[in-house]
Amino acid sequence: MRTPSDRRAPWRVILGNVIFNNDTPAGRAFDLVLIVLILGSILVVMLDSVRPMRAAYGSVLNRAEWVLTLLFTTEYVLRLISARRASHYARSFFGVVDLLSIVPGYLALLLPGAETLLIVRVLRLLRIFRILKLARYLSEANVLTEAIRASAAKITVFLAVVLSLVTVIGALMYLIEGPENGYTSIPTSIYWAIVTLTTVGYGDIAPKTPLGKALASLAMILGYGILAVPTGIVTVNLARAQDRRQPQRICPRCGLDRHDPDARYCKRCGEVLPAPA
Amino acid sequence: MRTPSDRRAPWRVILGNVIFNNDTPAGRAFDLVLIVLILGSILVVMLDSVRPMRAAYGSVLNRAEWVLTLLFTTEYVLRLISARRASHYARSFFGVVDLLSIVPGYLALLLPGAETLLIVRVLRLLRIFRILKLARYLSEANVLTEAIRASAAKITVFLAVVLSLVTVIGALMYLIEGPENGYTSIPTSIYWAIVTLTTVGYGDIAPKTPLGKALASLAMILGYGILAVPTGIVTVNLARAQDRRQPQRICPRCGLDRHDPDARYCKRCGEVLPAPA
Amino acid sequence: MRTPSDRRAPWRVILGNVIFNNDTPAGRAFDLVLIVLILGSILVVMLDSVRPMRAAYGSVLNRAEWVLTLLFTTEYVLRLISARRASHYARSFFGVVDLLSIVPGYLALLLPGAETLLIVRVLRLLRIFRILKLARYLSEANVLTEAIRASAAKITVFLAVVLSLVTVIGALMYLIEGPENGYTSIPTSIYWAIVTLTTVGYGDIAPKTPLGKALASLAMILGYGILAVPTGIVTVNLARAQDRRQPQRICPRCGLDRHDPDARYCKRCGEVLPAPA
Amino acid sequence: MRTPSDRRAPWRVILGNVIFNNDTPAGRAFDLVLIVLILGSILVVMLDSVRPMRAAYGSVLNRAEWVLTLLFTTEYVLRLISARRASHYARSFFGVVDLLSIVPGYLALLLPGAETLLIVRVLRLLRIFRILKLARYLSEANVLTEAIRASAAKITVFLAVVLSLVTVIGALMYLIEGPENGYTSIPTSIYWAIVTLTTVGYGDIAPKTPLGKALASLAMILGYGILAVPTGIVTVNLARAQDRRQPQRICPRCGLDRHDPDARYCKRCGEVLPAPA
Repeated sequence: MRTPSDRRAPWRVILGNVIFNNDTPAGRAFDLVLIVLILGSILVVMLDSVRPMRAAYGSVLNRAEWVLTLLFTTEYVLRLISARRASHYARSFFGVVDLLSIVPGYLALLLPGAETLLIVRVLRLLRIFRILKLARYLSEANVLTEAIRASAAKITVFLAVVLSLVTVIGALMYLIEGPENGYTSIPTSIYWAIVTLTTVGYGDIAPKTPLGKALASLAMILGYGILAVPTGIVTVNLARAQDRRQPQRICPRCGLDRHDPDARYCKRCGEVLPAPA
Repeated sequence: MRTPSDRRAPWRVILGNVIFNNDTPAGRAFDLVLIVLILGSILVVMLDSVRPMRAAYGSVLNRAEWVLTLLFTTEYVLRLISARRASHYARSFFGVVDLLSIVPGYLALLLPGAETLLIVRVLRLLRIFRILKLARYLSEANVLTEAIRASAAKITVFLAVVLSLVTVIGALMYLIEGPENGYTSIPTSIYWAIVTLTTVGYGDIAPKTPLGKALASLAMILGYGILAVPTGIVTVNLARAQDRRQPQRICPRCGLDRHDPDARYCKRCGEVLPAPA
Repeated sequence: MRTPSDRRAPWRVILGNVIFNNDTPAGRAFDLVLIVLILGSILVVMLDSVRPMRAAYGSVLNRAEWVLTLLFTTEYVLRLISARRASHYARSFFGVVDLLSIVPGYLALLLPGAETLLIVRVLRLLRIFRILKLARYLSEANVLTEAIRASAAKITVFLAVVLSLVTVIGALMYLIEGPENGYTSIPTSIYWAIVTLTTVGYGDIAPKTPLGKALASLAMILGYGILAVPTGIVTVNLARAQDRRQPQRICPRCGLDRHDPDARYCKRCGEVLPAPA
Repeated sequence: MRTPSDRRAPWRVILGNVIFNNDTPAGRAFDLVLIVLILGSILVVMLDSVRPMRAAYGSVLNRAEWVLTLLFTTEYVLRLISARRASHYARSFFGVVDLLSIVPGYLALLLPGAETLLIVRVLRLLRIFRILKLARYLSEANVLTEAIRASAAKITVFLAVVLSLVTVIGALMYLIEGPENGYTSIPTSIYWAIVTLTTVGYGDIAPKTPLGKALASLAMILGYGILAVPTGIVTVNLARAQDRRQPQRICPRCGLDRHDPDARYCKRCGEVLPAPA
């Protein structure tokens, strides 16, 4: 991976291959160790937030956190050293995520009140996606991403309609039910409308007057119909994205352009097909 | 945009172009300002309904509302003046919405008890759709609208079945559970059935007897299966609406402009079609 | 509508046409009146179950119910008289429904305790489907019915899997959470599992122990994936049922068998197509 | 079913055919009896967990359980005797399930405290799938299984994204709402996030602060869009799996047996195919 413009020393190139790539046994081993460390660190953050756990194993968790922070710091420094361009890496998305996953630990040491900052460590989870990005699920993720991107414009229109609907329904329910039934303000009523239209339905706020129940029933039925739309959009675009994955060949005699990847003759006219690209 | 039958003075034509169209820089700037004002006005309505906000910033919100109402009044008058036919605009859907978004403010001034009328101002949100109607999302919205319109007949049948089902299940639950378990009347039981079948599930009313729980379980499983239907309908019609959107080729002989993407000959006159772009 | 084997008197034939068909103005008027009466009668049943309504308008509702019962009785007698074969009608599905919609009223008169029988009157709603069966939505309903029938075998397999899953998850939760957290018995736990897997989520029973929450989380994610299946099944079969609605023509030269209904030439080879059947 | 390598005595072969196959009347009768016994045994387990039932009919249920356990023990011994290789059967999946369905009864007799073990008997339900495996729904189940297997890679990617999202949202809500509003720890907050994203929405934990409600609203809308993805994946793969099920034609020259329904020539060797049935 060393191009002429690359002025890194040979050991930095080797280190960079281990850290940034996963096409060598050493690189794959490094990634595996990193995934285990990241998941372990997420586990530490989680357990640390459970009060009885913290009471019983607080010092163990604390020490584990320190070991992990030091390991991630070492990794960050090694990445800075071995990157083709340190400044380019430091400002990249994953460079910032890497930094964010070690800074809170040090800050909490310096500022006693900054303990809530420790939650930021959950963002370490995002680092796993860098590794997955290189893995075999890449192409599956691409089909999904392509389908979602193709759906973006339609889903924007859909969201605009839903947000307007939710605002109008929320305002109406605020009028009908009022603060005495839990609809304390229009924003709260809009929150209720979202809870209802997405069929989540916590029940922390629920209509109590007959008119409110009637409007809520209408909203639920309407909502269900409306929420069929994103499913439809994603399904249609997913089918398309998957179809496009198959390179298309055209029959030179009859022009049919849908052939199975293993076809050698046109299924319609029997003509020999061009070899797949 | 001035046709021979147009008897407006030139300045009214220019004003009308700025206000009603968005194909000039001035028109687009006007629309942008209007969107900001509308969203700001919705925000004012919302904050105004939050009690602590009202207590702290009541007078500021009040003044903002007055400024916005005056601005919208000015806009309404300008629209009346510059419209090709003022009476036509005043009676159009958006003309009525425009009027509804300024009237409540004045009414609340005259009638002290009419404060609930202020909620009507949320309808200002609908005015945004006029602007969006002209924007680039038009064609996306059209595909969605076409798909939903094509689904209308099937969804009507589906709704009739669901409403009957919900009535029968509601009446049965009223019999089984009765008023002592929260099913105080058949309409309330029907409200519960809708909450259940749409999988919202507030939990404000829930079956308590074993038989009621059994019927509810049945309704949920049935409901889930049944509610797969609108999703299926919308998906199928969306796929179709999107197919029809393909880049259009025109037959050089007969002028037909709707051809399938894989067509090589005109399906109406048999002429060879131009190759797809 | 009088065939040689029909031995009814002419006035009975005319009456039968008005009552059983809707292809004459009189028949359509009769159906319209009947729909209004049925919906009105459902409304009476509903209002009758609302305590304040009953207290205030009890005698009015009672009288309305008597008038409606007498009208439906007259209609039933007229149907018996004018039917081609009275016994055949009386034993048909809708004949039984018609009888069921008048019997409870008389029974409640004779047996003072039989008032709960009055709820059976909600079944009158089913009578509307007889009328709709004849109407223009028939073909839409047929596509839906065909799609659901084609899905039946797959949905049976799916239901067997879901019921087993729900039983096993329910038993596990009964073990983990136990009666002290609301999971009072295995049937109740299964009810909870159904409420969860169908994403209804009342919240009347919810896991309280960490292990229970973990299993519930697993069940929810699993459940969501699993419940995508009926939607998929219905969508696929709906697309197929709708495709089959289009009569298929085959191009005599190239054999292409998918042509738009308005095609006159094969879009692939330009050959003249046979006229649509 | 006796092959040369089969050293079982003739009566063991006949017994094995009755027990393990269902292609003879005796085999089918055996399966039917077994299904009834299994469902009856599940019913006994369920009723046994309902306190009032246990109080009233405890001894009857106990005796029924003993009879069933003895019957299943006999069946297990007969299976061991008649299996082609007893050790192979004993270590197979269904062999273990069969053993698990009789062991708890004996253990509960020996160890007085092992009554909770009795719940394991619900696993008897799995034994029904062995019988269904042989039944007519096999091919339907295969289409479903094929569709779900084809979706596996995409659904893994999807699950990874959802789990990360749920962790990040959970941690944020723990920060925003905190233990005083029910979000007692990050794992609990993640449980809430799963309850919300899957639209179950128990309401046992619900946001109380304005910021928490805003984030929850965002999560719900996001969640709904995201959860359209598995439905899309399953639908697309189901359509594909069902297409592949078409009646199969065999190429007379090269023997290829997978042809599209619209193929007229073999896609591998170009030979004319027989017309579809």
